[in-house]
Amino acid sequence: MLESLDLDVSLPKEGYKEAFSPLKDRIVEQQRAIVEAERPVLIVFEGMEASGKGDSIRQVVAPLDPRGFKVHLMNSVLTDDERLWPKLRRHWLRTPKRGEIAIYDRSWYMETIMERVDGNMTDSEWSTWIDEVKQFERQLIDGGTILIKFWLHISKKEQRNRFKTREKSAYEGWRVGKDEWKRNKQFVHYIDAADNIIVETDTPYAPWTLVPSTDRRYRRVIVMRTIIETLARALETPPATTAFVNHVPTPYEIRGSEEGTLLDKTNTSVEISRDQYREELDQYQMRLRQLEFGCYAKRLPVILVYEGWDAAGKGGNINRLTQKLDPRGYNVIPISAPQGEEATKHYLWRFWRHAPKAGHFAIFDRSWYGRVMVERIEGFCREDEWKRAYYEINEFERHLADFGTVIVKFWLHISKEEQLRRFEERENNPRKRYKLTEEDWRNREKWDDYNIAVSEMIERTNTNYAPWVIVEGDCKLYARIKTLKTLVHMLEERLKSAN
Amino acid sequence: MLESLDLDVSLPKEGYKEAFSPLKDRIVEQQRAIVEAERPVLIVFEGMEASGKGDSIRQVVAPLDPRGFKVHLMNSVLTDDERLWPKLRRHWLRTPKRGEIAIYDRSWYMETIMERVDGNMTDSEWSTWIDEVKQFERQLIDGGTILIKFWLHISKKEQRNRFKTREKSAYEGWRVGKDEWKRNKQFVHYIDAADNIIVETDTPYAPWTLVPSTDRRYRRVIVMRTIIETLARALETPPATTAFVNHVPTPYEIRGSEEGTLLDKTNTSVEISRDQYREELDQYQMRLRQLEFGCYAKRLPVILVYEGWDAAGKGGNINRLTQKLDPRGYNVIPISAPQGEEATKHYLWRFWRHAPKAGHFAIFDRSWYGRVMVERIEGFCREDEWKRAYYEINEFERHLADFGTVIVKFWLHISKEEQLRRFEERENNPRKRYKLTEEDWRNREKWDDYNIAVSEMIERTNTNYAPWVIVEGDCKLYARIKTLKTLVHMLEERLKSAN
Repeated sequence: MLESLDLDVSLPKEGYKEAFSPLKDRIVEQQRAIVEAERPVLIVFEGMEASGKGDSIRQVVAPLDPRGFKVHLMNSVLTDDERLWPKLRRHWLRTPKRGEIAIYDRSWYMETIMERVDGNMTDSEWSTWIDEVKQFERQLIDGGTILIKFWLHISKKEQRNRFKTREKSAYEGWRVGKDEWKRNKQFVHYIDAADNIIVETDTPYAPWTLVPSTDRRYRRVIVMRTIIETLARALETPPATTAFVNHVPTPYEIRGSEEGTLLDKTNTSVEISRDQYREELDQYQMRLRQLEFGCYAKRLPVILVYEGWDAAGKGGNINRLTQKLDPRGYNVIPISAPQGEEATKHYLWRFWRHAPKAGHFAIFDRSWYGRVMVERIEGFCREDEWKRAYYEINEFERHLADFGTVIVKFWLHISKEEQLRRFEERENNPRKRYKLTEEDWRNREKWDDYNIAVSEMIERTNTNYAPWVIVEGDCKLYARIKTLKTLVHMLEERLKSAN
Repeated sequence: MLESLDLDVSLPKEGYKEAFSPLKDRIVEQQRAIVEAERPVLIVFEGMEASGKGDSIRQVVAPLDPRGFKVHLMNSVLTDDERLWPKLRRHWLRTPKRGEIAIYDRSWYMETIMERVDGNMTDSEWSTWIDEVKQFERQLIDGGTILIKFWLHISKKEQRNRFKTREKSAYEGWRVGKDEWKRNKQFVHYIDAADNIIVETDTPYAPWTLVPSTDRRYRRVIVMRTIIETLARALETPPATTAFVNHVPTPYEIRGSEEGTLLDKTNTSVEISRDQYREELDQYQMRLRQLEFGCYAKRLPVILVYEGWDAAGKGGNINRLTQKLDPRGYNVIPISAPQGEEATKHYLWRFWRHAPKAGHFAIFDRSWYGRVMVERIEGFCREDEWKRAYYEINEFERHLADFGTVIVKFWLHISKEEQLRRFEERENNPRKRYKLTEEDWRNREKWDDYNIAVSEMIERTNTNYAPWVIVEGDCKLYARIKTLKTLVHMLEERLKSAN
């Protein structure tokens, strides 16, 4: 596509000011409209060096209210620190909140193009990454983000000329070095890779705008007008909902829970003796500590997800699991309803934030699965949102797993009777009473709804790269040993094959 | 996901008839509604052998009007003949027309799972194929198809029991042989691959319904109810349109054609002498004939697309190109407005039909690009449809190219003045008059619109796997040599690297 771009288009000097000036007023209006509509906006500027990204961004933001936008300079070669996390994370972290405009000076594209041309990215890695980029963009857009992608394009010769001019400039001379000249020589290879990824990611939901950037005036006007028009059109329609996703009923919408759900079939009352517990607890805790060092040495990140009924014993279970671990190696992240900044962003944003870095454990006490449990049942999100979430969650975990993350998800399962027993015990014990809230009782009334939602969740998100483990929990001792044992075995397996 | 499926669910015998009977009436109503709404419906049944696909299909179609459905038995191991075309073609050809229900007994999934487990499908092939499957399903759904995918699931043990029962049956004994028992032994490998592809293709627009199929009654009711519910919900909304695609204006919607389009910049008046023409024509035609044999020997399929202005000389050009070819090796496919069956199917269907088989040439005189030219300009399709088409076309060509197809697309370009000259010549020449219609004059009035649409089309669909070549056509002799020469060079290159 880049090859066919007419790079000779230009705008005459006369009349330019008159043409550009009203665009500034219009973009200011659009910014206000965005704030009012609470829509996040993400604008990506990509292109080879000296193609005018910096100037474009300056032109766009000049008229804007600076409290409403953020410019992010994304280095194309990842720092050592950034390499400790899955690649998308740094891009996710900078995604705009509602009503905000985030402008990316380079993005998830150039880093890939560079790695493809300079590094040793295999065909398979290249296409997996393109897949993940498409999923990322689709998730943002499904979440209401308005995404605009520009590729500013110049010819090899034009780049050379601009480098030469820069070299002579007192202010900009430092920006042209050996690397820049080397890339100019290999210009065609970068453009080949760029063209390839542009074709693949020119999706109906996130199309590219290719901008011939030889002429500065022309580029400025096109960029400005494209942003203005895109925002205007996007604001005409509410945050996009994919109509399809509501068409197909979920299995439990069809079969109900009469024949018993996945959870109903689990016998929650398995027990072990206190003696056996003491012995095994010690043994597995010690082993886990060794494995924690193993993961650190091999740079394996580990994610544990704890979900379960109220009073199922998540807290105590996590305590026993971490008791002998080196505390520098793990984080426990308690999750409740999103607050503050979290509430202004895509629901997955805060989980990307807490993704563990290579060699570390992240233990989530409740998690992103809230989307398909409490948010579904309480109506905190729309039907299309929770239905889509199964898919988004599988993609999210897949991205982490592709980076090498070990993921285990525990559902702590107790019977309805056992829950009642524990609620009553808490009520009658002054030291435990604080643990029991009105909400717990209200949730209990919705046991059947949760029963269905959880069974459906486990069925749809139990993958070989991020398996669910149902932990029979009426006997807390048994449950603690089972989670420890499961984790120990999984890590042993993974460390065996790690190199 | 399959692992977590509760395979023990069942329905009691008593009450079953009363539960199932009304479903038959409802599906009959839905069939009528489908016909009325002119929606194509595609239902996929997948699962291991003896999982109840045949019985499910029988149950579903029993109450239906047989004129309104077709059942397609899709073999999982491709025949030698089927291997001469890209894999998706046989599935595309059977897609339902509007108002029709197509039921696939196995589909594009099991062939892949088998190849993955039994054959030597690399990771990269596996993920490319999954990508293409997702694109295929998205294209169908964007085109209005209601797609329902079932995976009927049984355990390895259950399968063994069923095989044993079958072996004893006089009617079904032949259906269990060595291969079946071998696959039963390797059951877990197939399920692993199945689970993997199910997770990847469980998209918001085409989710899977996993059906525990141990109990026959249970399976029947679930399948029937899922179909009925899905159709009911899908019919509530018009054929889905992706809202996003209209948000972002195309480059020419922004810049207009004032500064001149890609086409305007082409000098159409390059010439060659008649002597040079004769010499080169002969030389390149002979060379092309050799290359035709070369392509046949190497089993390379070749697609040529001819597009261009009215009276640009497509017919004469194609004539000269094919003049010395072995006519068994090529087909010329003239494309006009879709008629009859073509008009009842997805717009890409007829082009899949005419895709060349390995070793053959398909020469399209006009093509799928009508979508983004005449259909766009005349309003024969919606804005979201032609905007989405750029993407769909790139995907379509990519699939063909991945199969090894050589694709070249010619735009025969003449100036507006040259077109007028030719129109007048036709008008004044009684033998050529039939070639000129009122429509040609009407199209000419829309020259500017076409100018933009064509420039945009070339910009967005010029890929390295299916490049556009603009052929300067005021001098017909020059144009003929250029197409021949271009093709000869491309085939020489490709045959060099073919093995």
